[in-house]
Amino acid sequence: MSTIFSQIITGDLPCFKVYEDDRVLAFLDIHPIQPGHTLIIPKQESENGLVADPQDMGHMMQVAQKIGNALINIVGCDGVNFLMNNGAAAGQKIFHTHLHVIPRFTEDGVWDEPIAGEYESGEVENLAAAIAKELA
Amino acid sequence: MSTIFSQIITGDLPCFKVYEDDRVLAFLDIHPIQPGHTLIIPKQESENGLVADPQDMGHMMQVAQKIGNALINIVGCDGVNFLMNNGAAAGQKIFHTHLHVIPRFTEDGVWDEPIAGEYESGEVENLAAAIAKELA
Repeated sequence: MSTIFSQIITGDLPCFKVYEDDRVLAFLDIHPIQPGHTLIIPKQESENGLVADPQDMGHMMQVAQKIGNALINIVGCDGVNFLMNNGAAAGQKIFHTHLHVIPRFTEDGVWDEPIAGEYESGEVENLAAAIAKELA
Repeated sequence: MSTIFSQIITGDLPCFKVYEDDRVLAFLDIHPIQPGHTLIIPKQESENGLVADPQDMGHMMQVAQKIGNALINIVGCDGVNFLMNNGAAAGQKIFHTHLHVIPRFTEDGVWDEPIAGEYESGEVENLAAAIAKELA
């Protein structure tokens, strides 16, 4: 279960730290999508954001907001993505929960827009009802 | 400042609701990247996640975790992305804070992997220090 991020938390591996508190550590991704690309990780081990401590999840997003605003001031970006990939199918590479904070510049071409689909008639109502029931 | 999402919150426009509480509303995106693609929005108006109420931000991420797990059960996805685009440069289209919960299937080809960059020697240390100082 232990990943490279556990070794960063214990200090056995170095990182370029930008923020730390009791719950989380944030550091620069050394393979940045854009300079300033930051990863926020909970100190408590969990595989991804589907199983992480809910308090850690909420706190990570609050820290992302602070880091996003700092990046606007420091790297001068025009926008910021907050992205968490949960599971290999979603693009997760390191199986310790982490939230990407990615500076974006106008027309930087980082992502191609994913192609949106359409629902068949009746499909969307049934799906919404099934998800709502699961959450109730 | 008011967007289509404000009209969904007031009920002046319909939505395919999957979840609601005092702070947030969650409904299916009608142009889904994958079926089950859900948007979580705070009821309190804000332009994006850089300026939204921090409590709303934390709560949205906790609700995303619940919805992500519901999607695994209902649409049978293999992974889930949580994505918030803040600012037009980051791909934001509707200027009311929203968090995408996107079901993903193994090798579904939804995103091409963004190309990661590299830092010049010394650049990453200086950048980390500047961001850390901004956050201190």
